[in-house]
Order: sequence, then C-alpha cells, then structure tokens
Amino acid sequence: MIKSDDSKRYKATFRVGLFDTDFKNNVKLTSVCNFLQEIAGMHADALHWSIVDLLKNDQSWVLLRLKIKIYKYPKWLDEVVIETWPVGIDGLFCIRDFRVYSTSGELLMIASSTWIIINFKNKRPVRPSTILSFEDFVPDSVFNSNLQKLQVDISNATTKETQVQYSDLDLNQHVNNVKYVKWILDSCDLDFIKDHIIDSIEINFLKEAKYNDSIVVHRGDCLNNTQHFEVRNKNANTIHCNAIIEWKNK
Amino acid sequence: MIKSDDSKRYKATFRVGLFDTDFKNNVKLTSVCNFLQEIAGMHADALHWSIVDLLKNDQSWVLLRLKIKIYKYPKWLDEVVIETWPVGIDGLFCIRDFRVYSTSGELLMIASSTWIIINFKNKRPVRPSTILSFEDFVPDSVFNSNLQKLQVDISNATTKETQVQYSDLDLNQHVNNVKYVKWILDSCDLDFIKDHIIDSIEINFLKEAKYNDSIVVHRGDCLNNTQHFEVRNKNANTIHCNAIIEWKNK
Repeated sequence: MIKSDDSKRYKATFRVGLFDTDFKNNVKLTSVCNFLQEIAGMHADALHWSIVDLLKNDQSWVLLRLKIKIYKYPKWLDEVVIETWPVGIDGLFCIRDFRVYSTSGELLMIASSTWIIINFKNKRPVRPSTILSFEDFVPDSVFNSNLQKLQVDISNATTKETQVQYSDLDLNQHVNNVKYVKWILDSCDLDFIKDHIIDSIEINFLKEAKYNDSIVVHRGDCLNNTQHFEVRNKNANTIHCNAIIEWKNK
Repeated sequence: MIKSDDSKRYKATFRVGLFDTDFKNNVKLTSVCNFLQEIAGMHADALHWSIVDLLKNDQSWVLLRLKIKIYKYPKWLDEVVIETWPVGIDGLFCIRDFRVYSTSGELLMIASSTWIIINFKNKRPVRPSTILSFEDFVPDSVFNSNLQKLQVDISNATTKETQVQYSDLDLNQHVNNVKYVKWILDSCDLDFIKDHIIDSIEINFLKEAKYNDSIVVHRGDCLNNTQHFEVRNKNANTIHCNAIIEWKNK
C-alpha cells in the first residue's frame, strides 16, 4: 500500500502557448517533453539535487530513457498541472515518474523517466545513494515495469538527414534531449501526421550529438500502428537514440 | 501628454524555462518572440479581436514587421512581466507595442509590431477601423517612429539551406513567424554567437513559406556590429523575410 505522500510530490502548472500547439491544436510532444524536463529540474532543485547542485562536484544528470502515454491532448490556452516524484533507484538508475492533469483533475498523460548521475571529469556513473535521500522516494510507478532497453527494427527504413544547429543546443552546449523527439517527428510524412496522433512514445537516449553533426533519422514502416526509429550519426555511424511510437487514428 | 491608461494595457507573466535559454543561459530570442506573440494573442482575445473572433468573418491577423531591443537578458527560472497595448493604426497597419520587465520592475526589453488584417477568402486587407475600437488605443510608442520597410544589403552573403518541417508549422499549417528568426540565428557561426549578443533585431515578414519548401538564408557580413539577412525560397526565388540584427560584444 502506498502511504500518504502528497508532500513528497512536486506540482507545477504550465500554460499551453500557441507555440506549444501543432496544426491540430494539440499540444506538441516536444512541448510535453520540455514541461517534463522543466518540472524534473524544478523538483530536483527543491530537493538540492539540481544540475547546479551536482555541478559543484563535477556531476550531472543524464536522461537515458523516457516513456509518455497520452490519453488526451490539451489545447492552446489550456493549463496543465504536472505532478512528479522520484520513484526510487534501480542499480545506477534513478527513476522519476509524472502524471499530467487538466485543471479540472482529468488525467491527460503519464510518463516515466530513467536517469543516471555522471561524473563528467572521469566519465563514470555515480552511485545514486551517495546523493539522493531514500526518504524522498515515492514508490508509485505509473507503468507496470521500469523502462527497459529498446530493441528497434529499422529494416526497410526511410531516412531523413538533418544537421545540429545553434537552436538545438542547451545550457551545456549539448543537444537537448527534446531535439531528438523533434527530429523523429519531423522525419514522418505530414499526411501521416494529419491522420494519426501519438498514443505513446518510448525513447532511449544513447549518445549525445554535437554541434554541426550530420544526423540521419531512420524511420521504419508503421506496422499495426507501431513505428520504430533510430537516430544515427551520419559520419561516425553511432546511434544517438532509438524510439518506438504507438500511433492511433485521429 | 499620455493620459492615465493602465487599464488599457495587458500584462502577463512568463517563466523562462530551461528550454527557453541558450548555452549562455540567456533567454533565446525565439522564446522572446513566442512570448510576444502569445501575449498579443491573449490581449486581442480580451478585446474580442482574436484570431478566433476574426476567423468568423474569414479574416486573420498577419504579422508584417517586428523590432525588439534588448537591454538585459533574463535567465533560466526568471519570470518576466510583459506589458502590451495597441498603439493605433497607420493606414492599413495596426501597431502593437510591448515592454518586458523583470519581476522587480527593471526594463529588460522594448518591442514594436506591425500587423494587417487580411480577408483570406479574397486575399485583401481589411480596414482596421471596421474591427478595432479607437478607445482601446494607447498612443505610447516605444520607438521614435513606426517600423519601416527594411532595405537589406546581402552582397557577399554566406548561404545556408534548410527545409520547412512539421515542427515549423503552427495552428494554421503556416510556418510560424518565429521560425524565420530561428533560421536566421541558425545561419550564424557558433563562435560568433559565443562572442556576441543581440542588441536589437528588426524583421520584415514578406511571404509565407510552406511545408517542404527549401529555404536559403543569405547572411551578409557583420559590419560595425550590423548584419543583414534575407530568407529566400530556393526554388521560387521569392523573399520570405528580411532582417537586420545589431550585435554587441558579450
């Protein structure tokens, strides 16, 4: 049984701007990812585990896995209330989950994320128990199991190239995780996007891309509403990320 | 003398998210443009001139010109208070100005925008006086004169190509104005951006780009901290927008 833990969950309200919506007046998945990343940062800050706190010891948070399930899309001018909490740790992995509500309390989305803490001087992972406090955990998982490593099949894939731009870089001069989601969606045909909405996305972030890198998105066929993606570096031939999208008809 | 008009000005607060900042922890110019567009929409809605109101008569707002002068850049987690008001009309042009403040009242930015109302059935401009109410105007211009047509010189320009993507499209399936600003900044060298910040930008939006269009940004040399840009369609050879950026050293 989950004990009363409301004080351990962090809540914040986000307004869906015009710039957060697509031509269906649905919130963009990239904006949802921005909101989740933002509230994760806000809560980590409140718990004294923020990127600024970790930076003092040459450490940083790295997002490895993310899954979002969408029941209903908020629209322009809607406000959403996002609730987040650290679920716990699994070896070197730190799990943080989310629920997204309308202001009237309707559940719109659930999401889970897997992070590691890296010492960027020696490039090695840091044991979470040396930094996080177990008292802050809320053992309430929105999905049935922790996120696993994705196996994607991109045989017969269509490819689309892009290049890492200034606008893709975040505070650390790294490509922000949300940009991989943008590239994946931009690789889809517009007519397909017009007729489908995303039911869920699961993504593994494997290797960071850098400024001016040439990126190739491999988009597999959509089979039974499931579509696999792989984001590769054109020259180094490394894989930056894998993703699986479950679509549903509009 | 400007009469007391505080009730005619619309105010809203925006929080600068991590996704709104660049690697210098300065708010991105594209996010500033998003905020200005958003509050213009919110105020128009309050005045019953919103895009939704106009749509009922087959009309729409079209942004033609924008100028932003930046005194100080807000950072991640800062809140900004934006104030906007319709200044008045100039022939077919509707003028809306903005001031951006910190929560402590420090003036961070000023901005002016020029709009027309278009009947999108017959593609003709609509006389603003048939829609706007003069009583709502506040004759307070943040710049000395109304924004004029820009003359840009892009001889010796460097070019950079891009393509209109799904993520560039807004509610109307048009390329959102802010994307032109993104393309212009992405055409600049990263090392140059590291050493300079934008003091002001002035932009003319001339012709809308469409999905899959190939776009070429022509970037002139930076002379005395002034740089001219032209965003062209690669195939139709039409000009989508012109811009002039005034830079200052970091």
